[in-house]
Amino acid sequence: MKSLLLGMVCALLFTTADAQDSLPLMPMPASVQRGSGQFVIDSSFMIAVTGVQDPRLLRATERFLVSLRRQTGMFPLSMKISDGSPASLVVHADHAGRDIQELGEDESYSLTVASSGITLNAPTSLGAMHGLQTLLQFVATTPIGFAFPAVTINDAPRFHWRGLMIDVSRHFFPINVLKRNLDGMEAVKLNVFHLHLSDDQGFRVESKKFPKLHEMGSDGFFYTQEEIRDLIAYARDRGIRIVPEFDMPGHAISWFAGYAELASGPGPYAPERKWGIFDAAIDPTEDGTYKFLDHFIAEMAALFPDEFFHIGGDEVNGKQWAGNPKIQAFMLKHGLKDKGDLQAYFNTRVQALVHKHGKTMEGWDEILRPNLPNDILIQSWRGQESLAGAAKLGYRGLLSSGYYLDLMYPASQHYAVDPMSGAAASLSSDEKKRILGGEACEWAEYVSTENIDSRIWPRMAAIAERLWSPQGVNDVASMYERLDVVSLQFAGLGLTHNSYYEPMLRRIVGSEDIAALRTLADVVEPVKEYAREEQAVTPATSLSPLNRLVDAANPESATARKFSVMADAYLGGKADAQTKMRLRDYLTAWRDNDVKLRPQIAASFLLQEDDSLSRNLSLLGDAGLQAMDYLDNNQKPTSDWVTQQAAMIQQASKPSAQMLLMVAGPIQKLMSAAGGENPSNKP
Amino acid sequence: MKSLLLGMVCALLFTTADAQDSLPLMPMPASVQRGSGQFVIDSSFMIAVTGVQDPRLLRATERFLVSLRRQTGMFPLSMKISDGSPASLVVHADHAGRDIQELGEDESYSLTVASSGITLNAPTSLGAMHGLQTLLQFVATTPIGFAFPAVTINDAPRFHWRGLMIDVSRHFFPINVLKRNLDGMEAVKLNVFHLHLSDDQGFRVESKKFPKLHEMGSDGFFYTQEEIRDLIAYARDRGIRIVPEFDMPGHAISWFAGYAELASGPGPYAPERKWGIFDAAIDPTEDGTYKFLDHFIAEMAALFPDEFFHIGGDEVNGKQWAGNPKIQAFMLKHGLKDKGDLQAYFNTRVQALVHKHGKTMEGWDEILRPNLPNDILIQSWRGQESLAGAAKLGYRGLLSSGYYLDLMYPASQHYAVDPMSGAAASLSSDEKKRILGGEACEWAEYVSTENIDSRIWPRMAAIAERLWSPQGVNDVASMYERLDVVSLQFAGLGLTHNSYYEPMLRRIVGSEDIAALRTLADVVEPVKEYAREEQAVTPATSLSPLNRLVDAANPESATARKFSVMADAYLGGKADAQTKMRLRDYLTAWRDNDVKLRPQIAASFLLQEDDSLSRNLSLLGDAGLQAMDYLDNNQKPTSDWVTQQAAMIQQASKPSAQMLLMVAGPIQKLMSAAGGENPSNKP
Repeated sequence: MKSLLLGMVCALLFTTADAQDSLPLMPMPASVQRGSGQFVIDSSFMIAVTGVQDPRLLRATERFLVSLRRQTGMFPLSMKISDGSPASLVVHADHAGRDIQELGEDESYSLTVASSGITLNAPTSLGAMHGLQTLLQFVATTPIGFAFPAVTINDAPRFHWRGLMIDVSRHFFPINVLKRNLDGMEAVKLNVFHLHLSDDQGFRVESKKFPKLHEMGSDGFFYTQEEIRDLIAYARDRGIRIVPEFDMPGHAISWFAGYAELASGPGPYAPERKWGIFDAAIDPTEDGTYKFLDHFIAEMAALFPDEFFHIGGDEVNGKQWAGNPKIQAFMLKHGLKDKGDLQAYFNTRVQALVHKHGKTMEGWDEILRPNLPNDILIQSWRGQESLAGAAKLGYRGLLSSGYYLDLMYPASQHYAVDPMSGAAASLSSDEKKRILGGEACEWAEYVSTENIDSRIWPRMAAIAERLWSPQGVNDVASMYERLDVVSLQFAGLGLTHNSYYEPMLRRIVGSEDIAALRTLADVVEPVKEYAREEQAVTPATSLSPLNRLVDAANPESATARKFSVMADAYLGGKADAQTKMRLRDYLTAWRDNDVKLRPQIAASFLLQEDDSLSRNLSLLGDAGLQAMDYLDNNQKPTSDWVTQQAAMIQQASKPSAQMLLMVAGPIQKLMSAAGGENPSNKP
Repeated sequence: MKSLLLGMVCALLFTTADAQDSLPLMPMPASVQRGSGQFVIDSSFMIAVTGVQDPRLLRATERFLVSLRRQTGMFPLSMKISDGSPASLVVHADHAGRDIQELGEDESYSLTVASSGITLNAPTSLGAMHGLQTLLQFVATTPIGFAFPAVTINDAPRFHWRGLMIDVSRHFFPINVLKRNLDGMEAVKLNVFHLHLSDDQGFRVESKKFPKLHEMGSDGFFYTQEEIRDLIAYARDRGIRIVPEFDMPGHAISWFAGYAELASGPGPYAPERKWGIFDAAIDPTEDGTYKFLDHFIAEMAALFPDEFFHIGGDEVNGKQWAGNPKIQAFMLKHGLKDKGDLQAYFNTRVQALVHKHGKTMEGWDEILRPNLPNDILIQSWRGQESLAGAAKLGYRGLLSSGYYLDLMYPASQHYAVDPMSGAAASLSSDEKKRILGGEACEWAEYVSTENIDSRIWPRMAAIAERLWSPQGVNDVASMYERLDVVSLQFAGLGLTHNSYYEPMLRRIVGSEDIAALRTLADVVEPVKEYAREEQAVTPATSLSPLNRLVDAANPESATARKFSVMADAYLGGKADAQTKMRLRDYLTAWRDNDVKLRPQIAASFLLQEDDSLSRNLSLLGDAGLQAMDYLDNNQKPTSDWVTQQAAMIQQASKPSAQMLLMVAGPIQKLMSAAGGENPSNKP
């Protein structure tokens, strides 16, 4: 029963990508030409790997088989790597790629599926690995068996740097969480995993040279060097580089827990529990600082093989420097006018150390000062202007502004951000070449092992497409359609972005009966940008449980998005009878929900804060139904009604319990239309 | 929307165990006395472990904390093992228990929750570990926080042997699959994990003495000795013994792949691909056989520390022996009249070897012959009579008949089977003491890594309760109510008995739109007992994909069970208006489903066989609605209608695609009642 009712809704709301017309690929390849016919997969499926015999590619092919078996339900006893028999799929790479994966390696591939067989060709193993991932995205169930539809794909990425950063300092995530996210990254062809390994709240890597870093700076939650090496190998097997970040000179309180002498003010220090920007910063005026960093960077540069070494450099407020007479005297003596000059001095010395240990320095855009050498890399988080500005000054950069997943924006908003748009659009062609790509960031103040995947996926895939696919691939409806499909594929990889939700709701209610809460939860989103901090009654800390509705709610409400599309169709006169019925079903369900949720609100301490949201959703549902009645009956509401409802909407649109009711917008449109406004005038 | 509609159904169908009245414990403890008040869990939650400082218990306490953090969403930074501060929970065990867990160790515990604190006392670590699992089952969300309701529990198991057997030969399951099942076993206090490690289709353990056993007998799918040791340690940490089984002299073809000289007929042999009983058997007349077994048992007896060593012994058809003149001559010479005598001769010699290597022999009930020593253990699978018979002859036994999970019977049926019922009920008290308990068996002809958990859980928990709880705990409605709750808890442990379902349906349909298939899938069950083999058009083999609807369908349809309860209420005049509406909603959904599923059936090779089921479900829905119309309007159907519908029901009740439509029964009741029969006369 539940499935039937659910089904009726799904059938209406979800448009399945028709396998005969388009393939549900994400990121969309550079070129896709559909052929006729298909290659049918049966138990004799064999893969031959010709060309270079790269162990990494062989392992990737084995993993391809594991995935294909999972996707078809076939068994390991069939479907093998060929031992010479004629192959169903021939995977050919000319070269193995670099031992340590490098920025700019050839990642292109071509893939041809015909009814007689499949060929995958690539200059390097990296490209072949990407091609295998493409193939896994279009296994189809057909009348005669599982099959790959005939197609010719030629593909290569638009940008060389396609990254995801996870902040493992503010909350710690075990290796298995990182690994499943690497699996997700592989599926959408991302190639850089940036680990934000230290911050005020925690230092997360074992240091053998300075063991008090992890011993006193991590509360016991850190990665051993062995785990890091294993993770790097795991990432390399998936065509992903790992870039480590050790944030300095600010965001470094966790270092000071074990090494207070590095700080610019007296200790003692302990890992910070609160969130925000703190005064403490590394002392850039002491030679001891650079001796320490020389040894530290040497150790970490050896542990992390990647060319790039990220030194952070963001958000130094300079207060501890200003309060230290010795540092002030140093600045005076060296002609350093302000904290910016002092940080530039620090960066210059750190850059020399990074360079000494064979690495290229990377940092947030605050580090950009003209006296740094041109080979450093700028990660732009404060706006697209800084990216273009860096490129003009001769620096390479990548865009993170607009790709902050923790700000809870919808996929469409991230999707619209292009590294080459805005200020970058007017750069010269040489300057444009300095823009290497982009990186999504997941800062972890409000992220737990339980909900982290939902904070990254599936929205990450939209950014991955922006960074891989041609600039002209930007149809939002198509993006969401394919996102629905690949999101389910991610679940098959072990990502928990779907499965976390119901257990969290059950915990909040304290019962398996989560129907009413789910109706509410499905239409709310956490507040955007930094509003969660701004609206907190009691500031959250690293000890605060993340078990509230705001922690369970999806960053993007699919229900609200789909309701909004239907409401627009209705107001545009394009809704059929069924769509009208669905709109009314939704509104009725919302109107009637508060009565059901009320006893559960009384019974659960976690639900009490959601009282207003629940009441407001019922008011919205009621108002929406009334608006549809007016519209359907060609009647006009009284001006009292209009005024009253406008006040209600204003109230219901306000954040509550750090969440937003995402259906307030479309229902406001219904009410405005009922009140006589032209809907096309509304945003 | 979907959640609301789903919710309305759930709210009606699921009765949440009211935390104020009864605790959702499974297995139900021997004694539960509710108190008043509760212990509120906050971030200062501390556990002290007093008494014996057993590393196993300390690890169990750490794992308890991990689970409690998961259940509350609190963080590792709070909730700790006490370092001397006053504790919220005091765990006290007098003794650590044996280094190698033994049959009959004290597993009792007492647990008291008061508003001031929690105490858990047990004679051994085993009992304390069980108490921790009990505690995890009743964390409640309350108006003032997460809390344990006040209660006093005194608990001890009814039987010392509470087992689960998994056949890892017919299909191989990776270690992680076994581990998550051990987690489930721990949660319901099972204490024996029986690994059926060899059979015709595969030999699954590395042998260093006879490496061709795993090299040629496993298709590469076997456990290394290191993995086995790790698994044993994992099980021991959860209070679970591991009993290995090497089936002989029949079911041993996989041995012969590497060692054909052990067989009673000429080779060569390869691991069997088909299912069934085969002729090949170990040659019991050759001294070489016993030399081999002496070394083999020595090796495996050292690898598996448990006291018991299972030699199988089932289903020897004797044909290979009958066809071998040398063996026939041997039998004549030694006065062995038939295959039974010859197997008894074999068993006697094997028992001597098992004994020599320090173990107690266990076998299926076929091994029971009076000349074997009394310390062997009989696992009764062919009926309760053999269990009682063995006890009368002085042998210890355990019951598996009635606990075969692979036969796809409902939890209620297993729950009704009691080791002390049937023939055992009339045993003397000394004889009864020989009945050690029971063991559920999961044979793996039709089981994959994907669906194995669903074939075991949650039904296993009902058997676990039968084996742990007092004999008088047998309220089926209460069992199902609690099963619904713990089933969700199992999901939290990583068991996939719920999460496997939708991905399998999506694969069958080849789309994310599984609504119509789910409506059908929710009301079917795989055919029972051995009917899947009997009804196969083409016999399945170990190469057959397990990706059909019968592989996805749950062994027990919750929807059909709940519909049936509602239909009974309706026919008994006890249904309210809402229940009547629900019945009609179900019937309408079923009636209208075939039209929706039809295009998907045409598009998927995996759905084609489900054509009749889909049509029949629609006919059943239609007939049920008509029956309700007659009943609600106090009208009589024509005798033509009655005849016609009876024929339809008969058709719809037949297996199709190796599945049964489980709503045919309750709908037949509706039709019979409409036709004038007294429903109380119907079964």
